Amino acid sequence: MFRSLFFVVAALVAQVFTIPAPLEAQAPQVGTQAPGYYRMQLGRLEITALYDGAIQIDTKLLHHIETTDLDTLLSRMFVGKPKMQTAVNAYLVNTGKHLVLIDAGAGTLFGRNLGFIRKNMEASGYTPEQVDVVLLTHMHGDHLGGLIDKGGKPVFPKAIIRAAQAEGDYWLSKEVAAAAPKGRQHAFAIAREGAAAYQAKNKWQPFAEGTEVLPSIKAMKAIGHTPGHTAFAVESEGQKLLIWGDIIHAHAVQFIRPEVSIEFDVDQQQAVTTRKALLAEVASSGALVAGMHLPFPGLGHVRADGEGKYGWVPIEYAPLAATAKP
Amino acid sequence: MFRSLFFVVAALVAQVFTIPAPLEAQAPQVGTQAPGYYRMQLGRLEITALYDGAIQIDTKLLHHIETTDLDTLLSRMFVGKPKMQTAVNAYLVNTGKHLVLIDAGAGTLFGRNLGFIRKNMEASGYTPEQVDVVLLTHMHGDHLGGLIDKGGKPVFPKAIIRAAQAEGDYWLSKEVAAAAPKGRQHAFAIAREGAAAYQAKNKWQPFAEGTEVLPSIKAMKAIGHTPGHTAFAVESEGQKLLIWGDIIHAHAVQFIRPEVSIEFDVDQQQAVTTRKALLAEVASSGALVAGMHLPFPGLGHVRADGEGKYGWVPIEYAPLAATAKP
Repeated sequence: MFRSLFFVVAALVAQVFTIPAPLEAQAPQVGTQAPGYYRMQLGRLEITALYDGAIQIDTKLLHHIETTDLDTLLSRMFVGKPKMQTAVNAYLVNTGKHLVLIDAGAGTLFGRNLGFIRKNMEASGYTPEQVDVVLLTHMHGDHLGGLIDKGGKPVFPKAIIRAAQAEGDYWLSKEVAAAAPKGRQHAFAIAREGAAAYQAKNKWQPFAEGTEVLPSIKAMKAIGHTPGHTAFAVESEGQKLLIWGDIIHAHAVQFIRPEVSIEFDVDQQQAVTTRKALLAEVASSGALVAGMHLPFPGLGHVRADGEGKYGWVPIEYAPLAATAKP
Repeated sequence: MFRSLFFVVAALVAQVFTIPAPLEAQAPQVGTQAPGYYRMQLGRLEITALYDGAIQIDTKLLHHIETTDLDTLLSRMFVGKPKMQTAVNAYLVNTGKHLVLIDAGAGTLFGRNLGFIRKNMEASGYTPEQVDVVLLTHMHGDHLGGLIDKGGKPVFPKAIIRAAQAEGDYWLSKEVAAAAPKGRQHAFAIAREGAAAYQAKNKWQPFAEGTEVLPSIKAMKAIGHTPGHTAFAVESEGQKLLIWGDIIHAHAVQFIRPEVSIEFDVDQQQAVTTRKALLAEVASSGALVAGMHLPFPGLGHVRADGEGKYGWVPIEYAPLAATAKP
């Protein structure tokens, strides 16, 4: 009697507390993003866009525009304000002979939302050890921070690092740094630290503007944002890509209003002049563009819309064309 | 003497024939694209865009537009002609309780450039076996072909398949098919075959328009392209996403000229009416949109540009916000 009652109670308890067999499968949310790389073929060259992350830039740092105009331009592109999401990209060019990284992202400099070049390079099938040459568009922290790890050691142990002569002359000069406002001296220290790790191994090699730094890659003077800011013109089998560095920071604003500059431009007026010239050039030539602060992967075309205005047309995601392989 | 000569010769031979230590590392080109998925959080829901591939659509299939106007619109968006690259996307919604696939891509129906939903779903961290429910915006081959494999067997063995009642009434009717022109009868056969594999297991469940087919997912009548074409309004914690199926096929053309229809629209006039209504609605509400033929990942916002014209603003690639997780 007690025994059978025990079993009845036990059965009831089991019914209440055991998990019923699910009627529907419940898959846990995966919660991870697709890896931050994008690949394309440019003639015989393989180009890989790498995502370093994104920073939130205060739109107040944009100059030469009324607040109401600024709000209109940001709203029409659904860009947040007062902080706008701004991508940081780098580009890997595999020429078949050289594996060339153009810019290196922020590394550990600017917090946990940046510094993913290594991770995304590895996801894309390459390692930092395979990189022969790093070309720098300029020596700001979000382009050169990724050259070294937290301990100041080279991330690219076999690579030679190259920036324009004028760029190194500016950022690596203790005299220029000493003459700069206190608030800006940190930027010089960052540049010196990034370069030092490679200078110590005789792997820091400035280039002259206008030279072909490697077969298929020409350094184009594009100063203003910094004194040695460089765009790299990449070409293979008639296909052209201009990796233009920091010609545009706010895509929603500066394509339509190229006269808008940003606080970080060392020479505001020259930055505007250079932007206008390059926009006109790529709109005319139809060259593909890669931009370090354009929405990832930062690859696309520029369209002239008249009256000094331009439009940005991102490329469409596509598989690699098998026929374009070398 | 002979022995030492032998060593000299051997050393010379070795010098000539052994591979010299490379001065530069030569990394082989990887040659693969980043996986075709993109993830975002919508309130408590996880949304994953899946890329099925791309088809080349002849621009002559667009109606109600002059050739010169068409050329201008395609050129300004750098879209190729006379064949325009057109993505095929599907969307996975993980509600936490259900794993819902909205459309299934082309499967094996349309050649080797389509049919990558399974591969990209797996790359994104899910398997077809985990899918509970497949909702179809409509029953064209590039949306339902992926339901079955080459042998006609279900790709989603546990899933219930749901399309609008009016959609099944049309595509599964032998009478309607018999009355259609010969050249269009293949489309009916494809629809019947896709449905049959699930009807046989009692897993084909039509829904009525305007109903909440699942918690957070409402079926909205959006007919014209097909007689039961459905948009799915997804909402969580005030965030809205309209997965609108085939409201736009040619993004470079139909946002600016919504009156342009495409050959595949069963009711051309109604398709235009529905497109205009939905464009106005999402431009006004600010809801995020997902489109099966918009450039992958097909997620973005619609902006009203006045005079019945609209602009498409793709979302910017971003990591998943940790705070948005359920």
